Amino acid sequence: MTAKHSGGELWDNRKSQAASWFADLRDQLCTKLESLEPEGARFERKKWRRGDGSEDQGGGEMSMLHGQTFEKAGVHISVVHGEFSEDFRAQVDGAQDDPRFWAAGISVIIHPRNPLAPTAHMNTRMMVTTKGWFGGGGDLTPMVQRARSAEHEDTIDFHKAYKAACDKHDPGYYPKFKDACDSYFFLPHRDEMRGTGGIFYDHFDSGDWEADFAFTRDVGSAFVDVYPEIAARRINLPFTEADRAEQLQQRGRYVEFNLLYDRGTMFGLKTGGNVESILSSMPPMVSWP
Amino acid sequence: MTAKHSGGELWDNRKSQAASWFADLRDQLCTKLESLEPEGARFERKKWRRGDGSEDQGGGEMSMLHGQTFEKAGVHISVVHGEFSEDFRAQVDGAQDDPRFWAAGISVIIHPRNPLAPTAHMNTRMMVTTKGWFGGGGDLTPMVQRARSAEHEDTIDFHKAYKAACDKHDPGYYPKFKDACDSYFFLPHRDEMRGTGGIFYDHFDSGDWEADFAFTRDVGSAFVDVYPEIAARRINLPFTEADRAEQLQQRGRYVEFNLLYDRGTMFGLKTGGNVESILSSMPPMVSWP
Repeated sequence: MTAKHSGGELWDNRKSQAASWFADLRDQLCTKLESLEPEGARFERKKWRRGDGSEDQGGGEMSMLHGQTFEKAGVHISVVHGEFSEDFRAQVDGAQDDPRFWAAGISVIIHPRNPLAPTAHMNTRMMVTTKGWFGGGGDLTPMVQRARSAEHEDTIDFHKAYKAACDKHDPGYYPKFKDACDSYFFLPHRDEMRGTGGIFYDHFDSGDWEADFAFTRDVGSAFVDVYPEIAARRINLPFTEADRAEQLQQRGRYVEFNLLYDRGTMFGLKTGGNVESILSSMPPMVSWP
Repeated sequence: MTAKHSGGELWDNRKSQAASWFADLRDQLCTKLESLEPEGARFERKKWRRGDGSEDQGGGEMSMLHGQTFEKAGVHISVVHGEFSEDFRAQVDGAQDDPRFWAAGISVIIHPRNPLAPTAHMNTRMMVTTKGWFGGGGDLTPMVQRARSAEHEDTIDFHKAYKAACDKHDPGYYPKFKDACDSYFFLPHRDEMRGTGGIFYDHFDSGDWEADFAFTRDVGSAFVDVYPEIAARRINLPFTEADRAEQLQQRGRYVEFNLLYDRGTMFGLKTGGNVESILSSMPPMVSWP
């Protein structure tokens, strides 16, 4: 098998399409989130380069918002390439005999200030080793107990958006990727779900790259459509001190998940990713009372 | 080799001595910390049992203080026994062929409210598999940059106390255990130390149990002597909003270390330890701005 990362017009073209899309999606999402900032808070962008600068290994761009509505939100894109370390390549599909990789993606984490507005996470990525695949998903984490239910309006709408995006491509996708999300975003030591789910898919290669890319675009677009709408109806609701306390404590569970279990965090930290960008998912204020 | 956990008067007696000492040390430390609480805040104790209750596997007692001086402090003791899981026993000295273990210890984490007072951690334990050993140590984490230096009075006094405790037993202990502490409390992804060190030792078995137990007692007593003294001179100093912000951010590093790297945390979570007790080390309020 030809190493897909080693080029050729077909894969160069695919990589470039995916990278452009992730940047596009970033712009769409940032614009929508900024429109919910009453005092005009804006994302600040910051570029970073992978590696020590001795050779081109790509890089990324962070966009951070510290606003009135969104206490902290990060919308990051990256396009990186390089070689996996000896001990890491065994764990990555298609990297056993050839450690080179290329990866591009978008990663989003949004921590609203109002405890009645759910925290949300979304990412999608294209990975290329000697194999090529997509991965990603999105999930919702309501911060107060009374919203942490499959019957709550926010969770219903969130899942409805993802189901529609999935069903356009294959009626089997939503149930499968919903289950994968529930399994993934689970804290064994607490025996509890991180939130109310969404979808999660990885190593996704149906054999039709165009179709898989179209699916990945729809997953991203579904988030851009639904999350700002959910946030908009919550961010101006009155809340109590007790709601805020519950939010800060729930954010602690978020931290526990990301640092103890999240593969993306470990992948990033172990492959020389940008630490500032990876750990920008940490909530702005957290408590373990 | 006889499995030491399987009893016999000699080891039963040793276990009981160690367990009593940890409870004693807990009482001494709690009393000293409570004496620094101007409004009379007191530790609250809570017992827990290991396992599902179907058989005796020991348990422990948490002591939590939420005070004016100490925003959150935990002083926990435990005496547990059981069998390591299949995948865990390979990692534990002396447990390969016989998964039974006995362990007792004390674990301390203190988060003062005043940012000028350093956070501190101490634990000592006795472990028994087919082998028997002690482990433990203590380390200091100043919360503001200007105190994060080997030349700062707090760090000087902290190290002086541990050096004295070590030197009573062997002049080689302090340099060795100080280096081990510096290596252990390090955050690779940040390329920074957690704090300003202390001592750290593990799998410690000189061949003379009485001497090793005496050393472990002195390590605990050194902490009880020196930390409250350091805290006492800081807790009433005026501080700024910027100091508090720095403290909350530094506490984030503490969380990163505990969840990404700390062996005690992983050991506890993987061996059915008490989650509430293990994660009580998390700081009360933290920020990732």
